[in-house]
Amino acid sequence: MNQLWGGRFQKPTAVLLRKFNDSLPFDVRLADEDIRGSIAWARGLVGAGVLTSDEAQTLVDGLVQVEQEFATGSFVFAPGDEDVHTAVERRLTEIVGAVGGKLHTGRSRNDQVATDFRLWVMGAVEALREHVAHLQQALIASAEANLHTPMPGYTHLQHAQPVTWGHWVLSHFWPLTRDVARLDGARGMASELPLGSAALAGTAYPVDRRFLAQELGFARVSANSLDAVSNRDFATDFLYAATMISLHLSRLAEQLILFSSSEFGFVSLDDAYSTGSSLMPQKKNPDTLELTRGKAGRLIGNLTGLLATLKGLPSSYDKDLQEDKEPVFDAFDTLDVALPVMAGVIGTLTLRPERMAAQLEPNLLATDLADYLVKRGVPFREAHHLVGQVVRAAEARGVPLTALALTDLQAISPHFGADVLGVFDVAVSLASRNVTGGTGPEALQEQLLAAQTAVKDG
Amino acid sequence: MNQLWGGRFQKPTAVLLRKFNDSLPFDVRLADEDIRGSIAWARGLVGAGVLTSDEAQTLVDGLVQVEQEFATGSFVFAPGDEDVHTAVERRLTEIVGAVGGKLHTGRSRNDQVATDFRLWVMGAVEALREHVAHLQQALIASAEANLHTPMPGYTHLQHAQPVTWGHWVLSHFWPLTRDVARLDGARGMASELPLGSAALAGTAYPVDRRFLAQELGFARVSANSLDAVSNRDFATDFLYAATMISLHLSRLAEQLILFSSSEFGFVSLDDAYSTGSSLMPQKKNPDTLELTRGKAGRLIGNLTGLLATLKGLPSSYDKDLQEDKEPVFDAFDTLDVALPVMAGVIGTLTLRPERMAAQLEPNLLATDLADYLVKRGVPFREAHHLVGQVVRAAEARGVPLTALALTDLQAISPHFGADVLGVFDVAVSLASRNVTGGTGPEALQEQLLAAQTAVKDG
Amino acid sequence: MNQLWGGRFQKPTAVLLRKFNDSLPFDVRLADEDIRGSIAWARGLVGAGVLTSDEAQTLVDGLVQVEQEFATGSFVFAPGDEDVHTAVERRLTEIVGAVGGKLHTGRSRNDQVATDFRLWVMGAVEALREHVAHLQQALIASAEANLHTPMPGYTHLQHAQPVTWGHWVLSHFWPLTRDVARLDGARGMASELPLGSAALAGTAYPVDRRFLAQELGFARVSANSLDAVSNRDFATDFLYAATMISLHLSRLAEQLILFSSSEFGFVSLDDAYSTGSSLMPQKKNPDTLELTRGKAGRLIGNLTGLLATLKGLPSSYDKDLQEDKEPVFDAFDTLDVALPVMAGVIGTLTLRPERMAAQLEPNLLATDLADYLVKRGVPFREAHHLVGQVVRAAEARGVPLTALALTDLQAISPHFGADVLGVFDVAVSLASRNVTGGTGPEALQEQLLAAQTAVKDG
Amino acid sequence: MNQLWGGRFQKPTAVLLRKFNDSLPFDVRLADEDIRGSIAWARGLVGAGVLTSDEAQTLVDGLVQVEQEFATGSFVFAPGDEDVHTAVERRLTEIVGAVGGKLHTGRSRNDQVATDFRLWVMGAVEALREHVAHLQQALIASAEANLHTPMPGYTHLQHAQPVTWGHWVLSHFWPLTRDVARLDGARGMASELPLGSAALAGTAYPVDRRFLAQELGFARVSANSLDAVSNRDFATDFLYAATMISLHLSRLAEQLILFSSSEFGFVSLDDAYSTGSSLMPQKKNPDTLELTRGKAGRLIGNLTGLLATLKGLPSSYDKDLQEDKEPVFDAFDTLDVALPVMAGVIGTLTLRPERMAAQLEPNLLATDLADYLVKRGVPFREAHHLVGQVVRAAEARGVPLTALALTDLQAISPHFGADVLGVFDVAVSLASRNVTGGTGPEALQEQLLAAQTAVKDG
Repeated sequence: MNQLWGGRFQKPTAVLLRKFNDSLPFDVRLADEDIRGSIAWARGLVGAGVLTSDEAQTLVDGLVQVEQEFATGSFVFAPGDEDVHTAVERRLTEIVGAVGGKLHTGRSRNDQVATDFRLWVMGAVEALREHVAHLQQALIASAEANLHTPMPGYTHLQHAQPVTWGHWVLSHFWPLTRDVARLDGARGMASELPLGSAALAGTAYPVDRRFLAQELGFARVSANSLDAVSNRDFATDFLYAATMISLHLSRLAEQLILFSSSEFGFVSLDDAYSTGSSLMPQKKNPDTLELTRGKAGRLIGNLTGLLATLKGLPSSYDKDLQEDKEPVFDAFDTLDVALPVMAGVIGTLTLRPERMAAQLEPNLLATDLADYLVKRGVPFREAHHLVGQVVRAAEARGVPLTALALTDLQAISPHFGADVLGVFDVAVSLASRNVTGGTGPEALQEQLLAAQTAVKDG
Repeated sequence: MNQLWGGRFQKPTAVLLRKFNDSLPFDVRLADEDIRGSIAWARGLVGAGVLTSDEAQTLVDGLVQVEQEFATGSFVFAPGDEDVHTAVERRLTEIVGAVGGKLHTGRSRNDQVATDFRLWVMGAVEALREHVAHLQQALIASAEANLHTPMPGYTHLQHAQPVTWGHWVLSHFWPLTRDVARLDGARGMASELPLGSAALAGTAYPVDRRFLAQELGFARVSANSLDAVSNRDFATDFLYAATMISLHLSRLAEQLILFSSSEFGFVSLDDAYSTGSSLMPQKKNPDTLELTRGKAGRLIGNLTGLLATLKGLPSSYDKDLQEDKEPVFDAFDTLDVALPVMAGVIGTLTLRPERMAAQLEPNLLATDLADYLVKRGVPFREAHHLVGQVVRAAEARGVPLTALALTDLQAISPHFGADVLGVFDVAVSLASRNVTGGTGPEALQEQLLAAQTAVKDG
Repeated sequence: MNQLWGGRFQKPTAVLLRKFNDSLPFDVRLADEDIRGSIAWARGLVGAGVLTSDEAQTLVDGLVQVEQEFATGSFVFAPGDEDVHTAVERRLTEIVGAVGGKLHTGRSRNDQVATDFRLWVMGAVEALREHVAHLQQALIASAEANLHTPMPGYTHLQHAQPVTWGHWVLSHFWPLTRDVARLDGARGMASELPLGSAALAGTAYPVDRRFLAQELGFARVSANSLDAVSNRDFATDFLYAATMISLHLSRLAEQLILFSSSEFGFVSLDDAYSTGSSLMPQKKNPDTLELTRGKAGRLIGNLTGLLATLKGLPSSYDKDLQEDKEPVFDAFDTLDVALPVMAGVIGTLTLRPERMAAQLEPNLLATDLADYLVKRGVPFREAHHLVGQVVRAAEARGVPLTALALTDLQAISPHFGADVLGVFDVAVSLASRNVTGGTGPEALQEQLLAAQTAVKDG
Repeated sequence: MNQLWGGRFQKPTAVLLRKFNDSLPFDVRLADEDIRGSIAWARGLVGAGVLTSDEAQTLVDGLVQVEQEFATGSFVFAPGDEDVHTAVERRLTEIVGAVGGKLHTGRSRNDQVATDFRLWVMGAVEALREHVAHLQQALIASAEANLHTPMPGYTHLQHAQPVTWGHWVLSHFWPLTRDVARLDGARGMASELPLGSAALAGTAYPVDRRFLAQELGFARVSANSLDAVSNRDFATDFLYAATMISLHLSRLAEQLILFSSSEFGFVSLDDAYSTGSSLMPQKKNPDTLELTRGKAGRLIGNLTGLLATLKGLPSSYDKDLQEDKEPVFDAFDTLDVALPVMAGVIGTLTLRPERMAAQLEPNLLATDLADYLVKRGVPFREAHHLVGQVVRAAEARGVPLTALALTDLQAISPHFGADVLGVFDVAVSLASRNVTGGTGPEALQEQLLAAQTAVKDG
């Protein structure tokens, strides 16, 4: 019986239970954080008068050696290692002898694992922030290259009004700035030290928790030990932030899938980001983008699952909480690839401006036609209705709006004049939309600058 | 054909589609926000040179009248009112005549509904923050009244170590402070003006969007019109924050359900917050708490549903987005009752300290017994194992730890001395846990003060 | 204190709790089922010797009157009516006097509400089955009208191989047959009588439960009273079946949204199933289909929410179970409109075969080109690779496959002969796919027949 | 470029995309099914005139060798093996030479992977059915051992009415019978052969699909090739069935966690199914049960995630579908341990009938007291109210119901007689509940027999 807790038990744990219970297969990822936490704790125990400086140094040296064994892949697991904490303490004691048994004084795995996991999440946020910044830079570069290239804008996937590629591509930049804010929020939630809360009631040794927080890079110490060992808000905050990133990627992916279809043909994916078919030799498939879209479902599942697990948990620490790590790890691993892949897709995308231009048909300027009437004093609601009749007339004849004669238009409203054809100019339409956030040229320059600034300050 | 958009259509909308499509049954809740937004827009159109001051004043006066009709319940809906925006504009035009048709110049329902909904969410955050503060005050009052009343602390729902009522009840205070931070985050996300984005490309009229933002209380204007009409992050942020509140309530509810069972008997719910059985005359059921627990599932569903709806949406505005409101309204309505109900439950709860005391059996002090050995130089890991053997010995005889003779203890470890019985004093155990966040008396006073400060500054 | 259970209580229920607790606003939909259940129960109490035949007849007559009051909308609710069961019994007693107080003998709301809700779900399955059948008939009619009309087939939204409209439209028929099987499964689960289980332990009166089952149309009686009052599997089964229908509709909707875009242009929605824009006069939007797609998220949320609510519930009946009805009602109401709307969309859809034909480019026949080589003895894997080179060569020159000279092809493989151009015939390609389930003409006739049979037998 | 599809590509796939795209790390679990499918396909190609019998035999022999390499762990993966299908074909071709390149004739990975995965799910259902049966047997054995041992029954976790251990434990048997029906439904859905559907349009070779179905154990062939490669209903059906099992386990777990608390003390978990604490030496924790409860959240997440992934997918095969396998594997692996663990827990559980008996207080018989009045002619509703007053009177004095004098009772209702104390006999109360499904002795015998029969026939 080599568990940390076997003293009171008369029978060994059932083999199946070990398989069910042991978290080592996934929490081994916390080895670094666990060792950093133990080093801080050893130092804290000196201040609390539990360890001598020499004892603490022995422990720290041993822990550093264990860390190196993990780093070099030479760490050997033993059958009794039910989790990473057990494995580290077991190995430490092999190295340093009986003093290893003093490390866990006044500490519980409950506050230990919460500390380790918070450290890990803080690191994961850093990594994702960097990935997001790279994707944002790729979007900015794409915007810069084709800032004013006109393309149809859509609502309801129907032709709506002309926009530009720069405007479109930057519309996927801003959601990511919000994602950064959410990531920062999750990191802020994680940055609260639970160590010193022991199992549930607070440690009985006068350890200086603010010292521990400083050693480990936490912004503050937890205010209530029961809450500290039970609180997994930082994990769901991280999952929620990750899910939102994934949702935003899924929407970008969906549009690029459409744009790379034969029917749209606005963009062409680089071979390096496409795959083929085992049966159909001509296929070049946007698998990358489809997986990105599909994985948003996966992250929704990760988030939902952990929320459902946490619902109605009764006491300070319940073993249900062990289900917190796998969804978080999986969400991180997914985005750790999906974000750079999307940056690669954007960075290597070939645009087909001539295909975009081919879709810029007169219907896209129907709103401008209504605005033409407004400028001639027609209330907008009436102007809208009149242009609706123009659209219907053109459709009835199967011709574009521009093919109607002026007399046809004037039969609908006498306010149409000879200058009306000037409305059907995409450049004019674009140029008129220069409020902040609009697709007009000055507005776009302003937006691009704001994006460049945001990613620099992010 | 009385819709706003019927000009180009030759056939009326199918009756069923109307039922499917119309959002009036729920978006009527946005009437106030819609009218505020329209008043600001009318003023903005003056600055843009679209309306004269007189026209704008006529529109504002008309809108104020419509607002009053809603406020007094005298507003009469017409068959063509497919949503609140249509209803307001239709009624406005009835009141002010043809100039009503100018209000929608340069605006789309896409930016209009986003503006309305953001305003509503900002208000909802305020309301929930207030409810949360009241619940926090109730928890603080309960802590003050029984700050040092001892009770068993649990992990895994098993007796772990003694804690106090004050400590326990405050462990449900701190999650709510995190919830306030999330609510504030959601409000911050909502506080970005989409108005002026029009359908997708930005309005073609030089409206001063920063003026609009100021009029309506938004912190900033949106940076990209395509994103502005498509962005529902503020809605999912709100739902996520609400879901976390609900999860926290569910955990508090679960514990109170346990504590009010016959077997625990630690608390008794007030009659005013209990219900009976149609069959069993003796029953006094904690329905309140069970519903609170159950409704956490409901909110998880609201959040999950909206995330799934948003996944992979292709273009700037898709009608799928209309599914954003009902889950948000439902989440708010749920918490709008659940939070005050929980405050009422806490505020009227009767404690049974004698039932808590009856459960304070010696096993709860086994860790203190190990600490006793640690103080005598035994490494903690060994001390833990030795006390495990003590526990096993007592269990084998079917007696409490305190019934073992000193010689029995010394047979296990010679470090046990005559003073060992001093360990089995709950007050001593509590007094030793005075690190920040611990259940010891000084730590608790410190925590209570921190909680009082937090709710004051919240 | 007018609740059914107030005898032991000294204080009235808090007003807020009433708002939180009362289920009348939604369970009033169960009025019919509640009354049917009570009529059966009254008859059962005669058999058990609790009621005389006269008493039972009085109760039945009274219940029939209550039913009529509901049917005619003349039922008046009283302030104490916390749920539909209370309302019915209260009104019954007003009508029949003291004997009304005998109806609830040996019964609890726990078995009563489970009985009512199961009856309702059984009815809801019937209604949805009929809606599904109508949609299936619309799909069959569309298939019949254009069974062999060629169109591009897609995988990864890229041109893959030619298929036909009939084949495509029937691909949305078969998922619905699976949905019917799931609906039937849910009905089968619901068809088990809980009445007679009382609160949890079984009624103390010798009521003939099989008689009750027969009276109410249940297939069997429940086997364990604790399980009977706790079991909500039939509700989640219904929600799961409904969610799958919604998912299938969302996939059909997605494709029709694509097909009705300007870029595809394969279909045109009827005006009666389209809507316009408040700003852009030319817009004809597939709102119907977008809502259908979006509402799949809503149903996923309904299902997830109830599953989360049910997780970890401790005892036979917990009030959390009251959260079972609203998601089920909402899922039904959604499909009760979404299914007929989709049938209407399909039934009024205009096809544009010429737009489909315009997309039938030679790349779609690349697999047939590989098969050409296979027939000349080239192993498929090599043939696939050779045709890949052909595709690359054509792409490099910016021409379709058919523009390559025979010598170009023979430079890649000597197996290409003068007859190779015969491959590029869509009709030939279609004709070759006649295995069961294929898009070939005979296979399609067989499939259409199978579909007609399935919907007849459904 | 060693992929199956590289002919038309000019650049290699990005390394990151490989990491993102490759499914080998998880779909290697389908190796057996993949090889079985390929063997059948090779035979089918003989019938279609594509292969000679000799060629087919060569392929089959080679495939059998590959299968053995997997079985013995000697299979060596190559860098280009992007999925299990690629790995098998690559290795086969190494073994048999160029004829290996003929195996994929007329087949696509789209129909191949659907076939493999369906076979796997059919096997998984078998395995889970067996686990469920073992758990059901453990529950029956526990019921047999303590069929009539009385214990308090709960609703709302409050004392409700006496039941017996046998009744309680069997209440967890019946949900599992429903789970078996759901598993069977999922298997039925899976049992439809997609092979022969090729990429989307059906294979161009006259393969006998019914022969293939028979070879592989499918009940029928798919009716539409587009649907066949797109359909993942069997996967969600499996996940839903698995989630329901997990929910049922979570409810059983929750109750056992409560029952093994100090306060209830009804059961004691075996050491082999308990774990200890790293800090608190006395702890014996029901980790097993907590994990079981927590993992219900995980399965809800798996189901929700896949449903969200499938929502709104546009075409026959999209790469998003690759996200189908991991949640299904994870759900299976979870139950593959959780079910036997729960059988072990039940099989080794120690009951404490004396602790149950100690909780059988008179309030549990309040309903019987009302029935006493009913037998004396008092309408039940009035009887309920009178007994409520009795309960209140006893509570006001702080005494049990049985401590009230007859005169006290008669002051409330003259119908109380000297025989009233006979009501307060748990055995009498139990004996009166003998309707089918009740907790009375005859009913329990009947129920036990039904359970034994159900598990035998299951």
